Amino acid sequence: MITAAGNSRIKRLVQLNQKAKARRMEDVFVVEGAKMFLEAPAALIQEVYISESVFNRIQEKNLQDVRLQECKKKLDETGFEVVTDELFKKISDTQTPQGILCVVSQYHYELDALLEKENAFFMVLEDIQDPGNLGTIMRTGEGAGIDGVIMSKNTVDLYNPKTIRSTMGSIYRVPFVYVEDMQDTLQKLKKAGVHTYAAHLDGKHSYTQENYCEKTAFLIGNEGNGLKEETAKAADTYIRIPMDGQVESLNAAIAAALLMYEGRRQRKG
Amino acid sequence: MITAAGNSRIKRLVQLNQKAKARRMEDVFVVEGAKMFLEAPAALIQEVYISESVFNRIQEKNLQDVRLQECKKKLDETGFEVVTDELFKKISDTQTPQGILCVVSQYHYELDALLEKENAFFMVLEDIQDPGNLGTIMRTGEGAGIDGVIMSKNTVDLYNPKTIRSTMGSIYRVPFVYVEDMQDTLQKLKKAGVHTYAAHLDGKHSYTQENYCEKTAFLIGNEGNGLKEETAKAADTYIRIPMDGQVESLNAAIAAALLMYEGRRQRKG
Repeated sequence: MITAAGNSRIKRLVQLNQKAKARRMEDVFVVEGAKMFLEAPAALIQEVYISESVFNRIQEKNLQDVRLQECKKKLDETGFEVVTDELFKKISDTQTPQGILCVVSQYHYELDALLEKENAFFMVLEDIQDPGNLGTIMRTGEGAGIDGVIMSKNTVDLYNPKTIRSTMGSIYRVPFVYVEDMQDTLQKLKKAGVHTYAAHLDGKHSYTQENYCEKTAFLIGNEGNGLKEETAKAADTYIRIPMDGQVESLNAAIAAALLMYEGRRQRKG
Repeated sequence: MITAAGNSRIKRLVQLNQKAKARRMEDVFVVEGAKMFLEAPAALIQEVYISESVFNRIQEKNLQDVRLQECKKKLDETGFEVVTDELFKKISDTQTPQGILCVVSQYHYELDALLEKENAFFMVLEDIQDPGNLGTIMRTGEGAGIDGVIMSKNTVDLYNPKTIRSTMGSIYRVPFVYVEDMQDTLQKLKKAGVHTYAAHLDGKHSYTQENYCEKTAFLIGNEGNGLKEETAKAADTYIRIPMDGQVESLNAAIAAALLMYEGRRQRKG
């Protein structure tokens, strides 16, 4: 059991939670909680840490909690390290830690492979800054059946603990890729036959009046500034989300959800 | 100019930001920033506080900033009190205060009056707990053209500073009411001819397959638990938001947005 706050592994876990650079250097990310542990692909799990309390609970002879039973079974396979409850609070990014945390290998999807997908359906994000928005877009995107999320390099880090929590597990299942050059990426999409729609106040048609049954990508920009002008210009079609009252814009995750689910409605009913 | 942290008005403003009870007792709420100040109905503004920096800026002879010019004009009408920059940080709920804050009278809408609205379109929320979700639902609701938000008494306080920020001004324009008894409220809706649709995993039809052109109310439940069983049972129709992959539920604000904008699409195209 790890009991010392000065332990190098504890220090490292704190760094992995706080710093995108530390995560990138080690090519890993940290997930927390029973749900995120249970859904994590076994092949990607590198290390597992549980609190002393959780350790004691899974030793109980009459363990009733079904989720903990599942955790126990998976812990037997992955192996784990026990950490005092006090130290666990240190390595946790949440206010009320669930007492289970694991270090998982980062994903490495390739844009070219994503583009080969038949009838592909993508969400393209430019410089989204709010971790909760990004995570929610991943979660909603999985529900809407998209094939991947393509992000500008200045989009917030998807491996940020708050983003991971908001994905509710979708991070394991929705392919994603950060791209260096958005112009270049939009050209690649075009070449692959993907029609790009930019959510834009200048859109002539409402988003419900276009057809998304062929290869489709929706473009959503930064929370405060929307899409960069050059990015919007490179899109095939502008679409507008109509707004009543004095509303000037919608939240980025809401706008993305409306577009993705309109795509889903047209494709699957 | 207020310069002492011990000043009773400063202490009171801190309380008003932190405590729903303090706000209720005085029947007011606090809004921050130029946008929220400018959009606040003049008749409801009780007091305005600006930071020393903002005060100095609006005295500049060649004030270029258009928004500050508008603020200056409105400040001349409302009157204001100057607070040192350091104290302003204390009374502000944000990390980077804009230096303008005002105390506004609370709204008092009546359910019965809302129900008289022709072809009414409502969002009913049961025990939503996340301030950001509630604010986002108000903002999206204004965009979708709803006539009001009806909330269970255990829904988070709409006058919470974080909620107010997320509304982006919609709090001034979308009618809302907290109700004591949800069963009783659903009966009232029924009597007024409003068809109630509960977002529910047991829904037979997708939300896109029902008709919302007549009087409509959508019911959304708590983030973790959904609608209470008795509330869902009292609804006229269950509707389902279809989800691909392993998604078990959508974020509450996302689900509300999809329903409200489907309503809008059917009503206005």
